[in-house]
Amino acid sequence: MSRAVDPRTGAAIGPEIADTTPEEIREVCSRAAQAAPWLGGLSFPERAALLADLGQALRDHSGELVALADAETALGVPRLTGELARTAAQFDLFAEVLRDGAFCEATLDSPNPDAVPPHTDLRRMLVPLGPVAVFAASNFPFAFSVAGGDTASALAAGCPVVVKAHPGHPGLSARTAEILAGALSAAGAPEGVLTLVHGEAAGRALVADPAVTAVAFTGSPGGGRALFDVAMSRPDPIPFYGELGSINPVVVTAAAAAARPDEIADGLAGSAMLGSGQFCTKPGLVFVPEAAGLPGRVAERVAAAEVGPLLTARIEGGFREGLRRLLKVPGVRALLDGPEQGGGGHRVAPQVVTADARTFLADAAVLTEECFGPVTVLVTYSTEEELAAALGRVPGSLTGTVHAEPDDPAAASVVAALGARVGRLIHNGWPTGVAVTWSQHHGGPWPATTAVLHTSVGATAIRRFLRPITYQDVPEQLLPAALRDGNPLGIPRRVDGVLTTDGKAGRRG
Amino acid sequence: MSRAVDPRTGAAIGPEIADTTPEEIREVCSRAAQAAPWLGGLSFPERAALLADLGQALRDHSGELVALADAETALGVPRLTGELARTAAQFDLFAEVLRDGAFCEATLDSPNPDAVPPHTDLRRMLVPLGPVAVFAASNFPFAFSVAGGDTASALAAGCPVVVKAHPGHPGLSARTAEILAGALSAAGAPEGVLTLVHGEAAGRALVADPAVTAVAFTGSPGGGRALFDVAMSRPDPIPFYGELGSINPVVVTAAAAAARPDEIADGLAGSAMLGSGQFCTKPGLVFVPEAAGLPGRVAERVAAAEVGPLLTARIEGGFREGLRRLLKVPGVRALLDGPEQGGGGHRVAPQVVTADARTFLADAAVLTEECFGPVTVLVTYSTEEELAAALGRVPGSLTGTVHAEPDDPAAASVVAALGARVGRLIHNGWPTGVAVTWSQHHGGPWPATTAVLHTSVGATAIRRFLRPITYQDVPEQLLPAALRDGNPLGIPRRVDGVLTTDGKAGRRG
Repeated sequence: MSRAVDPRTGAAIGPEIADTTPEEIREVCSRAAQAAPWLGGLSFPERAALLADLGQALRDHSGELVALADAETALGVPRLTGELARTAAQFDLFAEVLRDGAFCEATLDSPNPDAVPPHTDLRRMLVPLGPVAVFAASNFPFAFSVAGGDTASALAAGCPVVVKAHPGHPGLSARTAEILAGALSAAGAPEGVLTLVHGEAAGRALVADPAVTAVAFTGSPGGGRALFDVAMSRPDPIPFYGELGSINPVVVTAAAAAARPDEIADGLAGSAMLGSGQFCTKPGLVFVPEAAGLPGRVAERVAAAEVGPLLTARIEGGFREGLRRLLKVPGVRALLDGPEQGGGGHRVAPQVVTADARTFLADAAVLTEECFGPVTVLVTYSTEEELAAALGRVPGSLTGTVHAEPDDPAAASVVAALGARVGRLIHNGWPTGVAVTWSQHHGGPWPATTAVLHTSVGATAIRRFLRPITYQDVPEQLLPAALRDGNPLGIPRRVDGVLTTDGKAGRRG
Repeated sequence: MSRAVDPRTGAAIGPEIADTTPEEIREVCSRAAQAAPWLGGLSFPERAALLADLGQALRDHSGELVALADAETALGVPRLTGELARTAAQFDLFAEVLRDGAFCEATLDSPNPDAVPPHTDLRRMLVPLGPVAVFAASNFPFAFSVAGGDTASALAAGCPVVVKAHPGHPGLSARTAEILAGALSAAGAPEGVLTLVHGEAAGRALVADPAVTAVAFTGSPGGGRALFDVAMSRPDPIPFYGELGSINPVVVTAAAAAARPDEIADGLAGSAMLGSGQFCTKPGLVFVPEAAGLPGRVAERVAAAEVGPLLTARIEGGFREGLRRLLKVPGVRALLDGPEQGGGGHRVAPQVVTADARTFLADAAVLTEECFGPVTVLVTYSTEEELAAALGRVPGSLTGTVHAEPDDPAAASVVAALGARVGRLIHNGWPTGVAVTWSQHHGGPWPATTAVLHTSVGATAIRRFLRPITYQDVPEQLLPAALRDGNPLGIPRRVDGVLTTDGKAGRRG
């Protein structure tokens, strides 16, 4: 049993929501498996139209959904309105991916008796993996929740989805699922294409269910690791795409700090406090030159920032605990009062923390642990050697940012050091705000994610839910359309080693 | 300590080989990490040339290597000569993949203030993951060993490799590593690009080493699962690409059995006995119609087959134990004498086992377990319903094969059922013999592999060792060549959503 809580007051709101039972999980997963042939059997354009319908259904209910989301998350109507639009746009991107067709990687090799070894007719493509479990996050109640990118990309791949609702916004989750179910039903979908379940134990049962073939998760390192371990200890381990925690290092070069101290302080404070510091891409660890006076400038701006209440009691507790852990480290200093000066509900005061590079190197494990909420850690360095040593201790992250000047002699080595440990490298910008495009990558080495090859945002997120199959000498009428002679779908294909995009690539056609 | 054994006599041959110590493993992995920037820093054509050199070095030492391999594996000179040629060709394929350039998935999105959400300049590509541990298999001493596809694809990706030698051919492993090291050194490579290590404990230490970023393994389900568990229980789990065990189901339709009984019996016996039944793609479970008399025909041919000694004492023991387990199942029958009638060394007699579909359904877990060596299990079915029920119990496999006639009414449902559980689907052919091409897939759902999205053979094997990175607003001079304006490498790129292959795709160019 659980109930939504108003983060502004701490009061319970909305109805009690029952946890899904183990029997129900079994039944839900079984229905998802039964729905897989229908979803996988849709042509690419048909599946694209279905996704477009889902995006439109969200837009059609925008006002209602945003109000529900604001009541349960306190993230504010403007931000939530933008997030809903972006969430609907994710469905549109995957519809575009399906119409493009390259995602299925159609590849044909003609028989070749002269090859080493010789071979007959081989044709490869990607096909849907099977039912996918999606674990919703608290901090993006649209974009990383029931209708989020994991759901959109799994459905795009042709995989039915079972979403484990985040208890931070259960009412919104239920209503979103209803709206999507309505659109699916109108499109003729059977039951089981998208189902919502509730409860922690239900989530574990979902990951262990034999019908589930992959898991997508966005959440805390602790919760993610526990579910990762469940997935890996199955008799038949399955892919687990988890986004866990990210410190998102930023480096400000000496030249940049000297040239643009106010601009950088503005940008950093704005990015770190966005959504009350509850972005997975929050710049949590910032290396600044000792001389530039940046910590004071950043602290001024953070002190003046409007910071809303945190999402849940657990996040509030985690933030207070994380700050305590940071401030126990010898040499670490808080630049502002707080966070005790909260103001009701899950409100906390923001914070800026500083340390010098020597302090950082002595306690890098604590100083590189993500503290989810409105705080950022500034580490001052005095030489490029010190900076290089410190960067060597930074763990895998979703993003890395460098602020540098034109022809900055420090830029190349920072780009190389950050590039070795992050999934997205930003130059003279800020990591919060994740565009939804063909070239986006939202992932990174552990602990940023559990699956360093994959992304949860952008066109290639679909690949997580596809597996290859090669057909050897299979007759035309038994082949999927994507692999037939003459390229009836008109998609990009690689034929006898040559990638062609004229829509005509194909043997005998 | 270990020593090679002549499978033909069971006698130890060659020198004692010391296990690599934990300290040495740490040192080897550290050197591999140090070599990563050199290998990753080569241009695609430079790395292609390096791979071509490695393939040529193998060809230059073909006679010596084949003789060594035959002494340690007894697989015979003709087969080993072919395998070496194929292994050299694998380097050539990856050289072609590098020259083509599409493998790095260069994708550029121009700034777009009208997108939802708006975005600035984003450019994505795949970059090397880092040092890779490769576990060699016993049954392909070239193609899946020190110079095998895992090594070739990891080096192609720009990842240094540490190979754990298979104790079945330690002398060959050492000599192969020496030859490759010579070619690497001639090309100016630093130490650490390719290193060989020995011993089981060394293998576990290798998987746990912090510098290792991925593991490729080919071997037994037990050994693979144990190392998989080591990789997954690291503080920072890493991708584990394991090929474990595969039963490779074959379905012969009623029409095919009636039309081509002798051809099918010939093909099946030949494929199942190839390499003494020690192929991971051996057809181990064959569904045949009750009426056609196929079991007797297959048994005749298997009895007459020339079957060489098994590779190692462990494989011989596993084969005998596996057969005992099969024959304990009520209703399972052996059609030939053996395998007690071995003839010295690791020789065993081949076997054909039969059961009806009812027996199969009652004990599917035992009957679908791979028995590595010269045996195949024939399951007779009487109706299509019985066949469908039986196929529902077949686990994930590398391959599935159907023998059917033109316009065979049974073919489509068999293709669908097999397609749901295998990585390669063969029509009127046999699964042994894995071509090395752009469209090859050598993988499949658990237990065939631990990583259902990936292949260990074919052009896309390189993807296992690459991770994405997106550059946001990074200036031209700090970008990798693959992402620069004007497409200086002339590779296929996707720009603003459009995939182009004219070698000119690029912003402002």
